[in-house]
Amino acid sequence: MTDAEQSYDVIVLGAGSTGENVADIVVRGGLSAVLVESELVGGECSYWACMPSKALLRGSEVLGQARAVAGAAAAVTGEQDVAATLDRRDGFTSHWDDAGQVEWVEGAGIALVRGHARLAGEKRVVVTTDDGAERVLTARYAVAVCTGSRAAVPPVDGLADVRPWTPREGTSAKEAPGRLLVLGGGYVGCEMATAWQQLGAQVTLLQRGDRLLPHLEPAAGEAVLASLRELGVDVRLGTDVDAARRDGDEVVLSGSTGEFRGDEVLVAAGRAANTDDVGVDTVGLTPGEYLDVDDSLQVSGTTWLYGVGDVNGRAQLTHMGKYQARQAGAAIVARARGEQVDLADWSPFVATADHRATPSVVFTSPQVAAVGLTAAQAADAGLPHRVVEYPIGSVAGAAVFADGYSGTAIAVVDTDREVLLGVTFVGEGVAELLHSATIAVVGEVPISRLWHAVPSYPTISEIWLRLLETYRG
Amino acid sequence: MTDAEQSYDVIVLGAGSTGENVADIVVRGGLSAVLVESELVGGECSYWACMPSKALLRGSEVLGQARAVAGAAAAVTGEQDVAATLDRRDGFTSHWDDAGQVEWVEGAGIALVRGHARLAGEKRVVVTTDDGAERVLTARYAVAVCTGSRAAVPPVDGLADVRPWTPREGTSAKEAPGRLLVLGGGYVGCEMATAWQQLGAQVTLLQRGDRLLPHLEPAAGEAVLASLRELGVDVRLGTDVDAARRDGDEVVLSGSTGEFRGDEVLVAAGRAANTDDVGVDTVGLTPGEYLDVDDSLQVSGTTWLYGVGDVNGRAQLTHMGKYQARQAGAAIVARARGEQVDLADWSPFVATADHRATPSVVFTSPQVAAVGLTAAQAADAGLPHRVVEYPIGSVAGAAVFADGYSGTAIAVVDTDREVLLGVTFVGEGVAELLHSATIAVVGEVPISRLWHAVPSYPTISEIWLRLLETYRG
Repeated sequence: MTDAEQSYDVIVLGAGSTGENVADIVVRGGLSAVLVESELVGGECSYWACMPSKALLRGSEVLGQARAVAGAAAAVTGEQDVAATLDRRDGFTSHWDDAGQVEWVEGAGIALVRGHARLAGEKRVVVTTDDGAERVLTARYAVAVCTGSRAAVPPVDGLADVRPWTPREGTSAKEAPGRLLVLGGGYVGCEMATAWQQLGAQVTLLQRGDRLLPHLEPAAGEAVLASLRELGVDVRLGTDVDAARRDGDEVVLSGSTGEFRGDEVLVAAGRAANTDDVGVDTVGLTPGEYLDVDDSLQVSGTTWLYGVGDVNGRAQLTHMGKYQARQAGAAIVARARGEQVDLADWSPFVATADHRATPSVVFTSPQVAAVGLTAAQAADAGLPHRVVEYPIGSVAGAAVFADGYSGTAIAVVDTDREVLLGVTFVGEGVAELLHSATIAVVGEVPISRLWHAVPSYPTISEIWLRLLETYRG
Repeated sequence: MTDAEQSYDVIVLGAGSTGENVADIVVRGGLSAVLVESELVGGECSYWACMPSKALLRGSEVLGQARAVAGAAAAVTGEQDVAATLDRRDGFTSHWDDAGQVEWVEGAGIALVRGHARLAGEKRVVVTTDDGAERVLTARYAVAVCTGSRAAVPPVDGLADVRPWTPREGTSAKEAPGRLLVLGGGYVGCEMATAWQQLGAQVTLLQRGDRLLPHLEPAAGEAVLASLRELGVDVRLGTDVDAARRDGDEVVLSGSTGEFRGDEVLVAAGRAANTDDVGVDTVGLTPGEYLDVDDSLQVSGTTWLYGVGDVNGRAQLTHMGKYQARQAGAAIVARARGEQVDLADWSPFVATADHRATPSVVFTSPQVAAVGLTAAQAADAGLPHRVVEYPIGSVAGAAVFADGYSGTAIAVVDTDREVLLGVTFVGEGVAELLHSATIAVVGEVPISRLWHAVPSYPTISEIWLRLLETYRG
């Protein structure tokens, strides 16, 4: 080991929430760890994704809820203060300053190196620091690549040249754009359209396919489509965009259903793995591809390399990255101790929920909260199942929550095992209902036992009783 | 059988939500059933309890939530329209008209007799109809007493003479009283104080003991005490009231901590069983007492008499009455078919959740949502347990929900079996989190498995992760 070479038990590439959690877990397990980060410590979620987007949405959401209650509506006579909402958003991102996160890292006993890290063969990482110097780090036990993902810019002629917004600009903009074009109708596109339309932009959302939120139950996309249009968003389904250009200050998109003009265009058309420049080629892997890992998040064919979080493409959500970090961290610690790591489903060392029970919430109005398999996924998997559906607006708690409450709950039941495979809730304020479904799916709680789980009256959760009654028929 | 005598498989006394559900279940099971009701079909919950109280609370709740979000707060420049809120409440009670409920009963194939029913020996019921006539009903299989409970008026000198409000008047008042005295700091007293104070009354709440919500975790009562005082309610703990009188239009209560004057006094000091005038003496039971039942809700020492809902005193909540109705209904049907009824915990015929997993929500601001055992109850039961607690305001979802969010989550873990015995959430908007805990408790999902139930980020449900981390230490 030279002067410029430092050794740690574990090297973690990328100090987003996933990397932070891997490092934290292994340090708690008695190992030493170093985090390497080239941007802000805390990562995408803290500064350019979950937190700022939810802060942009919350004000409009709660005002919509107040307007939906006769009596309360009378009090909402003013307008949302957009500048205050943006200020509030800035507070959630700590004004894009990572001092607080750095303090947490240091307090957790984790070393931090700022710079661009690249693998340089087995257990070896070279960091190019901001001043151009190189530092070599070596790992005694493991290297965890937690470099995440970035917005994928689709291969549309001219698109890269019009300086499109990615979700980064979409969540951090200092003011509402006048006219915003949104390319993509997945959850990011739908959330951003919901947020900016209500903060004063005129949004046009272009979606290639024939529905929004295509990975979720069709009822979800239908409800969000209706709500976006109700808010005034111009949603164009079945729109292939084949060219982009700037015309003065305007962005012009040429699509299969016409030409669309805006002041900005937000690209929300999927993610790309951040593996193109982290040296994976030095260990025999292909740059740009998602890392192929087993359920302990260990890269296939290695005994020391882990790919955790977005970078493995399993379940690209902050909470799933952190979950994987907990499981991978436990596996790294156990293996460092020479212990056997149980790779069976639901063991403390594997991320079984990635396949079976990934929860997600789309913070549109209505919200979409889903966990586990959709009906289509259950069918694709060849699982014997039955789908039960019930309108949430018919339960008393929803009627109290908002006048004219509209929503849907969908449960997919494994008819052999009589357990839930997946549940989707669509409706205002359903985000906090989701964890009930997540526990039911993960816990594989039999339907016969769920009958004893009584929802409190009158809450929206009473929908559980209706789903069970519908299933029993 | 005479002309005036009619026979049904099952006779149900009381057409509240519990009685309706017993009748519905047995009819679905192929039996005939008659419901006897002397007041409104639909019962206490629909007209004088859950529904109107929640309608009175919802407007203030959502406006408070909007005011707690910078940016949104600017839009709340007006006042709640109290008349519109009362109108909305009237809508939820169908203006105290039971035509819709009667239609449901008829559609469900259940016979309905209006009048006062009294048992007259085994399987025999005499109904005194409104015109003074008597009808005799006989039951082939079972009689279910679902007559519920009423407000207990404590033995305070003069109290009955001042025409106190019970929760009935408290939830159905046509305008806010000027000054309202509330006697009792349980959930009804706390909810009514929260509702009317925000609808314009000046409320004084008198509580005998030294804390509010004494059956819940102490943190719940503390938070609600602080919020009531913040709203301007004059809360007097440790106050024994020993006399009541009218002084002109004023009600005057003399208590151990002073004299209290108001325009009305609401008595919310517990419930009494509606068994004093239903003929239980004709079958050897004591009028006025709660019916002593087994887990299938069958009255001890009988093979045909059931006591379901509030009337058995097990768990006096609408949703638990309905749950008991489902279980008792299934037991009645099975026994009528000559089938064996499994009385083991969690069987389809028993109300195990009454003991192990009764959920309740107090719709104050903050809300209190609790299920299962409190720490004190676990200790009293001699169960090996550990209590873990975490501030909800420190999770990202709560910070997005409201500026300065304050709340607490408390989990009681059985340290032998490594399952949850009980969970309490205190905070704004926690009602819908409760069912996650209810499923975990009822499902006896091991802590090791709950680690795989990932809360979606950023929701308030992330508190689950913090509780588990705190438990692991």
